Amino acid sequence: MTGVSAVALAGLPEVRAGDDLAALIAGAGEALRDGDVVCVAHKVVSKAEGRVRRLEDVRPGERARELGARLGRDPRHVQVVLDEAAEVLRDERVLICRTRHGFVCANAGVDASNAGEPGSVVLLPEDPDASARALRARLRELTGTAPAVVVTDSFGRPWRHGQAEVAIGAAGLAPLDDWRGQADRAGRELTATWIAVADQAAAAADLARAGKDSGEPVVVLRGLDRFVTQDDGPGAAALIRPPEEDLFP
Amino acid sequence: MTGVSAVALAGLPEVRAGDDLAALIAGAGEALRDGDVVCVAHKVVSKAEGRVRRLEDVRPGERARELGARLGRDPRHVQVVLDEAAEVLRDERVLICRTRHGFVCANAGVDASNAGEPGSVVLLPEDPDASARALRARLRELTGTAPAVVVTDSFGRPWRHGQAEVAIGAAGLAPLDDWRGQADRAGRELTATWIAVADQAAAAADLARAGKDSGEPVVVLRGLDRFVTQDDGPGAAALIRPPEEDLFP
Repeated sequence: MTGVSAVALAGLPEVRAGDDLAALIAGAGEALRDGDVVCVAHKVVSKAEGRVRRLEDVRPGERARELGARLGRDPRHVQVVLDEAAEVLRDERVLICRTRHGFVCANAGVDASNAGEPGSVVLLPEDPDASARALRARLRELTGTAPAVVVTDSFGRPWRHGQAEVAIGAAGLAPLDDWRGQADRAGRELTATWIAVADQAAAAADLARAGKDSGEPVVVLRGLDRFVTQDDGPGAAALIRPPEEDLFP
Repeated sequence: MTGVSAVALAGLPEVRAGDDLAALIAGAGEALRDGDVVCVAHKVVSKAEGRVRRLEDVRPGERARELGARLGRDPRHVQVVLDEAAEVLRDERVLICRTRHGFVCANAGVDASNAGEPGSVVLLPEDPDASARALRARLRELTGTAPAVVVTDSFGRPWRHGQAEVAIGAAGLAPLDDWRGQADRAGRELTATWIAVADQAAAAADLARAGKDSGEPVVVLRGLDRFVTQDDGPGAAALIRPPEEDLFP
Protein backbone atom coordinates (compact mmCIF):
# COMPACT_ATOMS: atom_id res chain seq x y z
CA MET A 1 0.00 0.00 0.00
CA THR A 2 1.39 3.37 -0.99
CA GLY A 3 0.01 6.75 -0.11
CA VAL A 4 0.27 10.47 0.13
CA SER A 5 -0.98 12.95 2.70
CA ALA A 6 -1.53 16.68 2.43
CA VAL A 7 -1.84 18.96 5.43
CA ALA A 8 -2.62 22.67 5.19
CA LEU A 9 -0.73 24.86 7.68
CA ALA A 10 -2.93 27.10 9.77
CA GLY A 11 -2.12 30.39 11.39
CA LEU A 12 0.08 32.08 8.80
CA PRO A 13 -0.29 35.84 9.17
CA GLU A 14 -1.05 38.16 6.25
CA VAL A 15 2.24 38.31 4.32
CA ARG A 16 3.83 41.66 3.43
CA ALA A 17 6.70 42.77 1.23
CA GLY A 18 10.02 41.85 2.79
CA ASP A 19 8.61 39.21 5.14
CA ASP A 20 10.75 36.12 5.72
CA LEU A 21 8.21 33.65 4.31
CA ALA A 22 10.38 30.61 5.08
CA ALA A 23 10.50 31.65 8.75
CA LEU A 24 6.70 31.96 8.79
CA ILE A 25 6.41 28.47 7.28
CA ALA A 26 9.02 26.96 9.60
CA GLY A 27 7.25 28.51 12.57
CA ALA A 28 3.76 27.35 11.63
CA GLY A 29 3.80 24.36 13.95
CA GLU A 30 4.40 21.50 11.49
CA ALA A 31 7.90 20.02 11.86
CA LEU A 32 9.26 19.65 8.33
CA ARG A 33 11.13 16.53 7.28
CA ASP A 34 13.42 15.59 4.42
CA GLY A 35 11.21 14.16 1.70
CA ASP A 36 8.36 16.58 2.39
CA VAL A 37 7.02 18.72 -0.43
CA VAL A 38 6.03 22.20 0.71
CA CYS A 39 3.48 23.67 -1.70
CA VAL A 40 3.07 27.42 -1.47
CA ALA A 41 0.34 29.42 -3.22
CA HIS A 42 2.23 31.99 -5.26
CA LYS A 43 0.22 34.83 -3.80
CA VAL A 44 2.17 34.83 -0.53
CA VAL A 45 5.45 34.40 -2.41
CA SER A 46 4.59 37.35 -4.63
CA LYS A 47 3.58 39.48 -1.66
CA ALA A 48 6.78 38.69 0.24
CA GLU A 49 8.72 39.62 -2.90
CA GLY A 50 6.81 42.88 -3.30
CA ARG A 51 5.18 41.75 -6.56
CA VAL A 52 2.07 43.79 -5.84
CA ARG A 53 0.93 46.87 -7.75
CA ARG A 54 -1.37 49.57 -6.49
CA LEU A 55 -3.81 50.49 -9.24
CA GLU A 56 -3.64 54.17 -8.31
CA ASP A 57 -0.01 54.13 -9.47
CA VAL A 58 -0.87 52.69 -12.90
CA ARG A 59 -1.48 54.87 -15.97
CA PRO A 60 -3.39 52.81 -18.53
CA GLY A 61 -2.32 53.20 -22.15
CA GLU A 62 -4.62 53.27 -25.14
CA ARG A 63 -4.79 49.52 -25.64
CA ALA A 64 -5.57 48.95 -21.95
CA ARG A 65 -8.34 51.53 -22.10
CA GLU A 66 -9.82 49.98 -25.23
CA LEU A 67 -9.67 46.43 -23.81
CA GLY A 68 -10.94 47.57 -20.42
CA ALA A 69 -13.97 49.23 -21.99
CA ARG A 70 -14.70 46.23 -24.16
CA LEU A 71 -14.28 43.65 -21.37
CA GLY A 72 -15.82 45.73 -18.58
CA ARG A 73 -12.55 45.71 -16.64
CA ASP A 74 -10.60 48.38 -14.82
CA PRO A 75 -8.19 49.68 -17.52
CA ARG A 76 -5.42 49.99 -14.92
CA HIS A 77 -5.76 46.27 -14.11
CA VAL A 78 -5.66 45.56 -17.84
CA GLN A 79 -2.50 47.65 -18.15
CA VAL A 80 -0.77 45.54 -15.49
CA VAL A 81 -1.85 42.39 -17.35
CA LEU A 82 -0.37 43.78 -20.59
CA ASP A 83 2.85 44.65 -18.73
CA GLU A 84 3.15 41.04 -17.51
CA ALA A 85 2.20 39.40 -20.82
CA ALA A 86 4.71 38.43 -23.45
CA GLU A 87 1.78 37.89 -25.79
CA VAL A 88 -2.01 38.20 -25.62
CA LEU A 89 -3.36 35.06 -27.26
CA ARG A 90 -7.06 35.86 -27.03
CA ASP A 91 -8.93 38.90 -25.84
CA GLU A 92 -12.60 38.06 -26.20
CA ARG A 93 -14.07 37.52 -22.75
CA VAL A 94 -10.91 37.25 -20.73
CA LEU A 95 -7.30 38.05 -21.60
CA ILE A 96 -5.57 34.74 -22.24
CA CYS A 97 -1.86 35.51 -22.21
CA ARG A 98 1.49 33.87 -22.51
CA THR A 99 3.49 35.28 -19.60
CA ARG A 100 7.14 36.20 -19.84
CA HIS A 101 7.88 32.88 -18.09
CA GLY A 102 6.00 31.01 -20.85
CA PHE A 103 2.84 30.12 -18.90
CA VAL A 104 -0.46 30.35 -20.74
CA CYS A 105 -3.14 31.59 -18.37
CA ALA A 106 -5.86 34.16 -17.83
CA ASN A 107 -4.75 37.74 -17.20
CA ALA A 108 -1.07 36.77 -17.21
CA GLY A 109 -1.54 35.61 -13.62
CA VAL A 110 -2.44 39.11 -12.39
CA ASP A 111 -5.15 38.82 -9.77
CA ALA A 112 -6.99 41.13 -7.41
CA SER A 113 -8.45 38.47 -5.12
CA ASN A 114 -6.75 37.98 -1.76
CA ALA A 115 -4.41 40.81 -2.72
CA GLY A 116 -4.27 42.02 0.86
CA GLU A 117 -4.96 45.70 0.23
CA PRO A 118 -7.97 46.92 -1.71
CA GLY A 119 -7.02 48.59 -4.95
CA SER A 120 -3.99 46.34 -5.40
CA VAL A 121 -3.26 43.43 -7.71
CA VAL A 122 -0.80 40.61 -7.20
CA LEU A 123 1.54 39.55 -10.02
CA LEU A 124 3.30 36.23 -10.49
CA PRO A 125 6.82 36.09 -9.06
CA GLU A 126 9.47 37.40 -11.45
CA ASP A 127 11.16 33.96 -11.52
CA PRO A 128 9.07 31.38 -9.61
CA ASP A 129 11.76 28.68 -9.83
CA ALA A 130 14.22 31.08 -8.21
CA SER A 131 11.59 31.85 -5.57
CA ALA A 132 11.24 28.13 -4.85
CA ARG A 133 15.01 27.68 -4.63
CA ALA A 134 15.38 30.62 -2.27
CA LEU A 135 12.57 29.36 -0.04
CA ARG A 136 14.13 25.91 0.03
CA ALA A 137 17.57 27.24 0.91
CA ARG A 138 16.16 29.36 3.70
CA LEU A 139 14.04 26.47 5.04
CA ARG A 140 17.19 24.36 5.12
CA GLU A 141 18.99 27.09 7.03
CA LEU A 142 16.18 27.40 9.55
CA THR A 143 15.19 23.76 10.02
CA GLY A 144 18.17 21.65 9.01
CA THR A 145 15.94 19.72 6.59
CA ALA A 146 15.60 20.19 2.87
CA PRO A 147 11.99 19.64 1.82
CA ALA A 148 11.13 20.27 -1.81
CA VAL A 149 9.29 23.52 -2.51
CA VAL A 150 6.58 24.04 -5.14
CA VAL A 151 5.10 27.44 -5.93
CA THR A 152 1.57 27.11 -7.29
CA ASP A 153 -1.19 28.99 -9.05
CA SER A 154 -4.63 27.98 -10.24
CA PHE A 155 -5.00 27.96 -14.01
CA GLY A 156 -8.07 27.54 -16.16
CA ARG A 157 -7.86 24.88 -18.83
CA PRO A 158 -9.14 24.68 -22.40
CA TRP A 159 -12.22 22.52 -22.92
CA ARG A 160 -12.86 22.05 -19.20
CA HIS A 161 -14.71 24.08 -16.62
CA GLY A 162 -13.03 25.27 -13.46
CA GLN A 163 -9.43 25.76 -12.50
CA ALA A 164 -6.81 23.33 -11.30
CA GLU A 165 -3.73 24.24 -9.29
CA VAL A 166 -0.46 23.82 -11.19
CA ALA A 167 3.22 24.25 -10.41
CA ILE A 168 4.76 27.52 -11.60
CA GLY A 169 7.96 27.11 -9.60
CA ALA A 170 9.77 24.17 -8.04
CA ALA A 171 13.00 23.28 -6.26
CA GLY A 172 14.01 19.79 -5.20
CA LEU A 173 11.05 18.04 -6.81
CA ALA A 174 11.34 16.09 -10.05
CA PRO A 175 8.69 17.97 -12.05
CA LEU A 176 8.07 15.08 -14.45
CA ASP A 177 8.15 11.31 -14.07
CA ASP A 178 9.17 9.83 -17.38
CA TRP A 179 7.92 6.31 -18.14
CA ARG A 180 8.49 6.59 -21.87
CA GLY A 181 10.46 3.59 -23.04
CA GLN A 182 9.78 1.69 -19.83
CA ALA A 183 7.44 -1.28 -19.64
CA ASP A 184 3.87 -1.70 -18.45
CA ARG A 185 2.80 -4.68 -16.33
CA ALA A 186 2.72 -6.94 -19.39
CA GLY A 187 6.15 -5.81 -20.56
CA ARG A 188 4.71 -3.61 -23.32
CA GLU A 189 6.57 -0.36 -23.93
CA LEU A 190 4.88 2.78 -22.59
CA THR A 191 5.30 5.19 -25.48
CA ALA A 192 3.71 8.37 -24.14
CA THR A 193 3.51 8.06 -20.36
CA TRP A 194 5.09 11.11 -18.82
CA ILE A 195 3.56 12.28 -15.56
CA ALA A 196 3.43 15.92 -14.53
CA VAL A 197 4.29 15.18 -10.90
CA ALA A 198 4.67 18.81 -9.83
CA ASP A 199 1.28 19.78 -11.29
CA GLN A 200 -0.38 16.84 -9.56
CA ALA A 201 1.33 17.82 -6.30
CA ALA A 202 -0.06 21.35 -6.69
CA ALA A 203 -3.57 19.95 -7.28
CA ALA A 204 -3.36 17.63 -4.28
CA ALA A 205 -2.20 20.53 -2.10
CA ASP A 206 -5.13 22.69 -3.16
CA LEU A 207 -7.59 19.97 -2.12
CA ALA A 208 -6.19 20.09 1.41
CA ARG A 209 -7.25 23.71 1.86
CA ALA A 210 -10.59 24.36 3.50
CA GLY A 211 -11.43 27.09 0.98
CA LYS A 212 -10.36 30.16 -0.93
CA ASP A 213 -11.05 32.32 2.12
CA SER A 214 -9.33 30.05 4.65
CA GLY A 215 -5.90 31.68 4.67
CA GLU A 216 -4.00 28.42 4.12
CA PRO A 217 -1.45 29.21 1.42
CA VAL A 218 0.99 26.50 2.54
CA VAL A 219 0.36 22.76 2.32
CA VAL A 220 2.83 20.03 3.23
CA LEU A 221 2.70 16.82 1.17
CA ARG A 222 4.18 13.59 2.54
CA GLY A 223 4.80 10.31 0.74
CA LEU A 224 6.48 11.73 -2.37
CA ASP A 225 10.03 11.09 -1.15
CA ARG A 226 10.88 9.26 -4.37
CA PHE A 227 10.47 12.51 -6.32
CA VAL A 228 12.38 14.70 -3.88
CA THR A 229 15.95 15.35 -4.98
CA GLN A 230 19.08 16.58 -3.26
CA ASP A 231 19.76 19.22 -5.89
CA ASP A 232 17.13 21.75 -6.86
CA GLY A 233 16.71 20.29 -10.35
CA PRO A 234 15.18 21.90 -13.45
CA GLY A 235 12.20 23.50 -11.70
CA ALA A 236 8.74 24.06 -13.10
CA ALA A 237 10.25 25.62 -16.21
CA ALA A 238 10.63 22.00 -17.36
CA LEU A 239 6.83 21.77 -17.54
CA ILE A 240 6.55 24.48 -20.16
CA ARG A 241 6.06 23.11 -23.66
CA PRO A 242 7.42 25.48 -26.30
CA PRO A 243 4.65 26.74 -28.62
CA GLU A 244 6.23 25.09 -31.67
CA GLU A 245 6.07 21.67 -29.95
CA ASP A 246 2.45 21.96 -28.92
CA LEU A 247 0.32 18.98 -29.92
CA PHE A 248 -3.09 20.51 -29.37
CA PRO A 249 -5.21 22.51 -31.79
CA MET B 1 -5.45 22.31 10.18
CA THR B 2 -7.18 20.61 7.28
CA GLY B 3 -5.91 17.74 5.24
CA VAL B 4 -6.39 15.00 2.73
CA SER B 5 -4.92 11.52 2.46
CA ALA B 6 -4.69 9.19 -0.51
CA VAL B 7 -4.06 5.47 -0.18
CA ALA B 8 -3.60 3.16 -3.16
CA LEU B 9 -5.19 -0.27 -2.76
CA ALA B 10 -2.84 -3.15 -3.34
CA GLY B 11 -3.60 -6.63 -4.50
CA LEU B 12 -6.31 -6.09 -7.09
CA PRO B 13 -6.16 -8.91 -9.62
CA GLU B 14 -6.04 -8.35 -13.38
CA VAL B 15 -9.59 -7.29 -14.25
CA ARG B 16 -11.53 -9.06 -17.00
CA ALA B 17 -14.81 -8.43 -18.82
CA GLY B 18 -17.75 -9.17 -16.57
CA ASP B 19 -15.80 -8.95 -13.31
CA ASP B 20 -17.59 -7.40 -10.36
CA LEU B 21 -15.16 -4.51 -9.92
CA ALA B 22 -16.96 -3.14 -6.86
CA ALA B 23 -16.56 -6.50 -5.14
CA LEU B 24 -12.84 -6.49 -5.93
CA ILE B 25 -12.55 -2.97 -4.47
CA ALA B 26 -14.61 -3.80 -1.40
CA GLY B 27 -12.50 -6.89 -0.80
CA ALA B 28 -9.13 -5.17 -1.15
CA GLY B 29 -8.59 -4.78 2.56
CA GLU B 30 -9.40 -1.10 3.08
CA ALA B 31 -12.68 -0.60 4.95
CA LEU B 32 -14.56 2.11 3.07
CA ARG B 33 -16.36 4.90 4.93
CA ASP B 34 -19.00 7.45 4.07
CA GLY B 35 -17.17 10.56 2.91
CA ASP B 36 -14.43 8.59 1.16
CA VAL B 37 -13.72 9.25 -2.50
CA VAL B 38 -12.80 6.10 -4.42
CA CYS B 39 -10.78 7.03 -7.51
CA VAL B 40 -10.60 4.31 -10.13
CA ALA B 41 -8.35 4.39 -13.19
CA HIS B 42 -10.71 3.99 -16.11
CA LYS B 43 -8.70 1.11 -17.51
CA VAL B 44 -10.07 -1.38 -15.00
CA VAL B 45 -13.58 0.04 -15.41
CA SER B 46 -13.31 -0.32 -19.18
CA LYS B 47 -11.98 -3.86 -18.89
CA ALA B 48 -14.76 -4.92 -16.52
CA GLU B 49 -17.26 -3.43 -18.97
CA GLY B 50 -15.69 -5.24 -21.92
CA ARG B 51 -14.54 -2.00 -23.56
CA VAL B 52 -11.50 -3.70 -25.06
CA ARG B 53 -10.91 -4.35 -28.76
CA ARG B 54 -8.63 -6.95 -30.25
CA LEU B 55 -6.72 -5.42 -33.13
CA GLU B 56 -7.00 -8.64 -35.14
CA ASP B 57 -10.76 -8.04 -35.31
CA VAL B 58 -10.36 -4.51 -36.72
CA ARG B 59 -10.44 -3.73 -40.45
CA PRO B 60 -8.82 -0.34 -41.00
CA GLY B 61 -10.49 1.92 -43.54
CA GLU B 62 -8.73 4.20 -45.98
CA ARG B 63 -8.38 7.15 -43.62
CA ALA B 64 -6.95 4.95 -40.86
CA ARG B 65 -4.43 3.45 -43.28
CA GLU B 66 -3.39 6.90 -44.50
CA LEU B 67 -3.05 8.30 -40.97
CA GLY B 68 -1.32 5.16 -39.70
CA ALA B 69 1.29 5.37 -42.46
CA ARG B 70 1.87 9.06 -41.86
CA LEU B 71 2.09 8.79 -38.05
CA GLY B 72 3.91 5.45 -37.92
CA ARG B 73 0.99 3.87 -36.08
CA ASP B 74 -0.79 0.55 -36.47
CA PRO B 75 -3.70 1.42 -38.82
CA ARG B 76 -6.02 -0.87 -36.87
CA HIS B 77 -5.30 1.10 -33.69
CA VAL B 78 -5.95 4.31 -35.67
CA GLN B 79 -9.27 2.87 -36.86
CA VAL B 80 -10.38 2.27 -33.28
CA VAL B 81 -9.41 5.86 -32.44
CA LEU B 82 -11.49 7.13 -35.36
CA ASP B 83 -14.41 4.97 -34.23
CA GLU B 84 -14.25 6.56 -30.76
CA ALA B 85 -13.75 10.14 -31.95
CA ALA B 86 -16.59 12.55 -32.60
CA GLU B 87 -14.04 14.81 -34.26
CA VAL B 88 -10.31 14.74 -34.99
CA LEU B 89 -9.02 18.18 -34.02
CA ARG B 90 -5.39 17.73 -35.04
CA ASP B 91 -3.54 14.89 -36.76
CA GLU B 92 0.07 16.00 -37.00
CA ARG B 93 2.09 13.98 -34.51
CA VAL B 94 -0.67 12.46 -32.46
CA LEU B 95 -4.42 12.31 -33.02
CA ILE B 96 -5.99 14.92 -30.77
CA CYS B 97 -9.69 14.10 -30.72
CA ARG B 98 -12.91 15.22 -29.19
CA THR B 99 -14.51 12.01 -27.95
CA ARG B 100 -18.20 11.28 -28.17
CA HIS B 101 -18.40 12.25 -24.46
CA GLY B 102 -16.89 15.65 -25.27
CA PHE B 103 -13.40 15.09 -23.83
CA VAL B 104 -10.46 16.50 -25.77
CA CYS B 105 -7.52 14.11 -25.50
CA ALA B 106 -4.94 12.15 -27.44
CA ASN B 107 -6.18 9.15 -29.43
CA ALA B 108 -9.75 9.57 -28.15
CA GLY B 109 -8.61 7.80 -24.98
CA VAL B 110 -7.78 4.57 -26.82
CA ASP B 111 -4.66 3.07 -25.28
CA ALA B 112 -2.63 -0.09 -25.66
CA SER B 113 -0.66 0.19 -22.43
CA ASN B 114 -1.75 -2.01 -19.54
CA ALA B 115 -4.40 -3.46 -21.88
CA GLY B 116 -4.01 -6.86 -20.31
CA GLU B 117 -3.71 -8.89 -23.51
CA PRO B 118 -1.14 -8.12 -26.16
CA GLY B 119 -2.74 -6.98 -29.40
CA SER B 120 -5.62 -5.34 -27.60
CA VAL B 121 -6.53 -1.73 -26.93
CA VAL B 122 -8.67 -0.32 -24.14
CA LEU B 123 -11.35 2.27 -24.89
CA LEU B 124 -12.92 4.77 -22.53
CA PRO B 125 -16.13 3.58 -20.88
CA GLU B 126 -19.22 4.21 -23.00
CA ASP B 127 -20.64 6.52 -20.28
CA PRO B 128 -18.10 7.07 -17.48
CA ASP B 129 -20.59 8.89 -15.24
CA ALA B 130 -22.92 5.90 -15.50
CA SER B 131 -19.95 3.64 -14.71
CA ALA B 132 -19.24 5.70 -11.58
CA ARG B 133 -22.87 5.60 -10.51
CA ALA B 134 -23.07 1.83 -10.99
CA LEU B 135 -19.85 1.29 -9.03
CA ARG B 136 -21.13 3.51 -6.24
CA ALA B 137 -24.48 1.72 -6.06
CA ARG B 138 -22.79 -1.66 -5.95
CA LEU B 139 -20.28 -0.51 -3.29
CA ARG B 140 -23.21 0.68 -1.20
CA GLU B 141 -24.87 -2.72 -1.61
CA LEU B 142 -21.71 -4.56 -0.59
CA THR B 143 -20.39 -2.33 2.18
CA GLY B 144 -23.35 -0.36 3.54
CA THR B 145 -21.41 2.86 2.95
CA ALA B 146 -21.70 5.25 0.04
CA PRO B 147 -18.29 6.65 -0.86
CA ALA B 148 -18.10 8.91 -3.88
CA VAL B 149 -16.62 7.31 -7.00
CA VAL B 150 -14.42 9.04 -9.58
CA VAL B 151 -13.33 7.39 -12.82
CA THR B 152 -10.05 8.85 -14.05
CA ASP B 153 -7.76 9.02 -17.05
CA SER B 154 -4.48 10.83 -17.68
CA PHE B 155 -4.75 13.60 -20.25
CA GLY B 156 -2.04 15.66 -21.91
CA ARG B 157 -2.49 19.41 -21.73
CA PRO B 158 -1.80 22.20 -24.19
CA TRP B 159 1.31 24.30 -23.50
CA ARG B 160 2.55 21.97 -20.75
CA HIS B 161 4.67 18.83 -20.77
CA GLY B 162 3.45 15.62 -19.22
CA GLN B 163 0.02 14.31 -18.37
CA ALA B 164 -2.19 14.94 -15.38
CA GLU B 165 -4.96 12.64 -14.21
CA VAL B 166 -8.46 14.08 -14.64
CA ALA B 167 -11.99 12.96 -13.83
CA ILE B 168 -13.92 11.48 -16.73
CA GLY B 169 -16.72 10.06 -14.57
CA ALA B 170 -18.03 10.82 -11.10
CA ALA B 171 -20.87 9.93 -8.75
CA GLY B 172 -21.44 11.49 -5.35
CA LEU B 173 -18.67 14.07 -5.64
CA ALA B 174 -19.36 17.74 -6.36
CA PRO B 175 -17.20 18.07 -9.48
CA LEU B 176 -16.78 21.82 -9.11
CA ASP B 177 -16.54 24.15 -6.11
CA ASP B 178 -17.96 27.50 -7.12
CA TRP B 179 -16.61 30.54 -5.27
CA ARG B 180 -17.80 33.01 -7.89
CA GLY B 181 -19.72 35.79 -6.19
CA GLN B 182 -18.39 34.82 -2.75
CA ALA B 183 -15.85 36.88 -0.86
CA ASP B 184 -12.11 36.54 -0.34
CA ARG B 185 -10.53 37.16 3.08
CA ALA B 186 -10.78 40.90 2.63
CA GLY B 187 -14.43 40.75 1.56
CA ARG B 188 -13.60 41.34 -2.12
CA GLU B 189 -15.76 39.39 -4.56
CA LEU B 190 -14.10 36.40 -6.20
CA THR B 191 -15.14 36.78 -9.82
CA ALA B 192 -13.60 33.73 -11.46
CA THR B 193 -12.75 31.24 -8.73
CA TRP B 194 -14.27 27.93 -9.65
CA ILE B 195 -12.31 24.87 -8.55
CA ALA B 196 -12.27 21.63 -10.53
CA VAL B 197 -12.48 19.46 -7.41
CA ALA B 198 -12.93 16.17 -9.26
CA ASP B 199 -9.90 16.79 -11.49
CA GLN B 200 -7.77 17.69 -8.48
CA ALA B 201 -8.99 14.54 -6.73
CA ALA B 202 -7.93 12.49 -9.75
CA ALA B 203 -4.49 14.11 -9.71
CA ALA B 204 -4.04 13.53 -5.99
CA ALA B 205 -5.02 9.89 -6.44
CA ASP B 206 -2.46 9.38 -9.18
CA LEU B 207 0.31 10.66 -6.91
CA ALA B 208 -0.48 7.92 -4.40
CA ARG B 209 0.37 5.18 -6.89
CA ALA B 210 3.87 3.77 -6.80
CA GLY B 211 4.09 3.80 -10.60
CA LYS B 212 2.51 3.00 -13.94
CA ASP B 213 3.52 -0.64 -13.54
CA SER B 214 2.42 -1.03 -9.94
CA GLY B 215 -1.06 -2.41 -10.52
CA GLU B 216 -2.79 0.08 -8.24
CA PRO B 217 -5.80 1.30 -10.22
CA VAL B 218 -7.82 2.18 -7.12
CA VAL B 219 -6.99 4.95 -4.66
CA VAL B 220 -9.09 6.00 -1.67
CA LEU B 221 -9.08 9.71 -0.76
CA ARG B 222 -10.08 10.85 2.72
CA GLY B 223 -10.74 14.36 3.99
CA LEU B 224 -13.00 15.49 1.16
CA ASP B 225 -16.26 14.81 3.02
CA ARG B 226 -17.49 18.35 2.31
CA PHE B 227 -17.63 17.55 -1.41
CA VAL B 228 -19.26 14.13 -1.04
CA THR B 229 -23.00 14.23 -1.68
CA GLN B 230 -25.88 11.93 -0.89
CA ASP B 231 -27.17 11.97 -4.47
CA ASP B 232 -24.92 11.12 -7.37
CA GLY B 233 -24.96 14.67 -8.73
CA PRO B 234 -24.08 15.92 -12.21
CA GLY B 235 -20.99 13.76 -12.68
CA ALA B 236 -17.84 14.64 -14.58
CA ALA B 237 -19.95 15.71 -17.56
CA ALA B 238 -20.26 19.00 -15.66
CA LEU B 239 -16.52 19.54 -16.22
CA ILE B 240 -16.86 19.62 -19.98
CA ARG B 241 -16.85 23.13 -21.42
CA PRO B 242 -18.78 23.30 -24.69
CA PRO B 243 -16.54 24.32 -27.60
CA GLU B 244 -18.49 27.54 -28.19
CA GLU B 245 -17.79 28.66 -24.61
CA ASP B 246 -14.09 27.97 -24.70
CA LEU B 247 -11.94 30.89 -23.56
CA PHE B 248 -8.59 29.68 -24.86
CA PRO B 249 -7.05 30.22 -28.26
